[in-house]
Amino acid sequence: MDADTLFRKIREKRSFLCVGLDTDIRKIPPALRNEEDPVFAFNRRIIDATHEYAVAYKPNVAFYEENGAAGWRSLERTVAYLREKDPSLFVIADAKRGDIGNTSRMYARAFFERMDVDALTVAPYMGHDSVGPFLEYPGKWVILLALTSNPGAEDFQFFSDGKRHLYEEVLIKAARWGTPDNLMFVTGATRAEKLREIRRWVPGHFLLVPGVGVQGGSLEEVARYGMNDRCGLLVNSSRGIIYAGSGDDYEAAAAAGARELQQKMERLLREKGIV
Amino acid sequence: MDADTLFRKIREKRSFLCVGLDTDIRKIPPALRNEEDPVFAFNRRIIDATHEYAVAYKPNVAFYEENGAAGWRSLERTVAYLREKDPSLFVIADAKRGDIGNTSRMYARAFFERMDVDALTVAPYMGHDSVGPFLEYPGKWVILLALTSNPGAEDFQFFSDGKRHLYEEVLIKAARWGTPDNLMFVTGATRAEKLREIRRWVPGHFLLVPGVGVQGGSLEEVARYGMNDRCGLLVNSSRGIIYAGSGDDYEAAAAAGARELQQKMERLLREKGIV
Repeated sequence: MDADTLFRKIREKRSFLCVGLDTDIRKIPPALRNEEDPVFAFNRRIIDATHEYAVAYKPNVAFYEENGAAGWRSLERTVAYLREKDPSLFVIADAKRGDIGNTSRMYARAFFERMDVDALTVAPYMGHDSVGPFLEYPGKWVILLALTSNPGAEDFQFFSDGKRHLYEEVLIKAARWGTPDNLMFVTGATRAEKLREIRRWVPGHFLLVPGVGVQGGSLEEVARYGMNDRCGLLVNSSRGIIYAGSGDDYEAAAAAGARELQQKMERLLREKGIV
Repeated sequence: MDADTLFRKIREKRSFLCVGLDTDIRKIPPALRNEEDPVFAFNRRIIDATHEYAVAYKPNVAFYEENGAAGWRSLERTVAYLREKDPSLFVIADAKRGDIGNTSRMYARAFFERMDVDALTVAPYMGHDSVGPFLEYPGKWVILLALTSNPGAEDFQFFSDGKRHLYEEVLIKAARWGTPDNLMFVTGATRAEKLREIRRWVPGHFLLVPGVGVQGGSLEEVARYGMNDRCGLLVNSSRGIIYAGSGDDYEAAAAAGARELQQKMERLLREKGIV
């Protein structure tokens, strides 16, 4: 998928919502616990309940790996189901991979060939040859960590050479490795005011923004500082949608949570003149 | 396992060799390709052939993920076999994980509870709360990326605030998060001369050193600049051992490759007065 296609989808759905599938097997409603694959059974129902409000889904790979080979199977099934449900959904494996070239190539095969997701989150620490192998796949995307939403972002991402912070150095250097058609950046909603500066470095790239909701980020601020004239944002919500309900109401609650965000997003897209 | 136990094992075996199990299914000898799980079948024979010369094994998780759920199963079997073969082997999952706290917790469960490896390689970019959950497991280790062996290490690891480079900032800050009993650092052999400076920051910590062999690093230089009086080194060789043979001689060739490194290591340990 290229950036044009993603933008078209955002306009059609009046939404730039990414639903994070951080599915914790301990939190699955009792009614699904006896299913053969409870994690997949839950994801399927969440996808059914929310897909008309979302343009993207982001399974968080850690939550699947925790269940070993069976968890990996749940992840593969979830991705296949997303493809079947609506081939135009943008599917992100949130895996934060990155290693020396020959190893990143293996991760690229795992996620872009075997699993066929559209995008993979990648950590920048090991530099260009750890990112390059992922950029060789036409139509596939790297979503590179720049400024993350967690407290530990302060430790190294703000390390500065006097002119700029490390996260800015990552934006500037990496923007040369890819294009706005195959490279996005992770920029956390908990530091929305930084999005204004980030837009100076990467005016045209999409940004994947986690941290709205449970982590405390504000959607309005993210849009104010980060939206460009082709939207340029995918805003993720995980726990606020998939665990919106506490019992058997989980499907209706997830749908309501996703719809509420979609409606806010539609308003923000209108204010910007995009829809 | 604590640092004392690992040091005792190094003295007993006169070796600080870590064998990297970067097992590529395309490179498995024809004789094993019809086995039910060729990757595990190969690993088992490599472990049998090399275990008396090595103190540690390091499966590279990317090479297993490439085969999806089946690959994850091969990885689980490999770790279980290492445990069965010799419970004193130090088993490292080379996965380079790291995410916000609640997600790192899931990775910790995957690798330290379900799979029960001794150590996990972790990327530092997201800071303390991405590393902390792994340090909460008694007897388990984080091996944090500091200075890696690949060309891309130049991109961000040498970013400097005028006083120190980013990789030094990582060493200094992270050394406060853990202890020499639960924290090591990855420092690549291709920059062995940097080990002298690194030892100023972390004199007592173990260093995991990849890049000897195919990547061009020198074992002698690594020992000269990086060895401390409790050895403090695990030196990894992957392709130089597991693909030392090109056909049905792979077991003998792997054993010979591992023995040759062990003998060099024994000499270096003697020169240092450790054995």
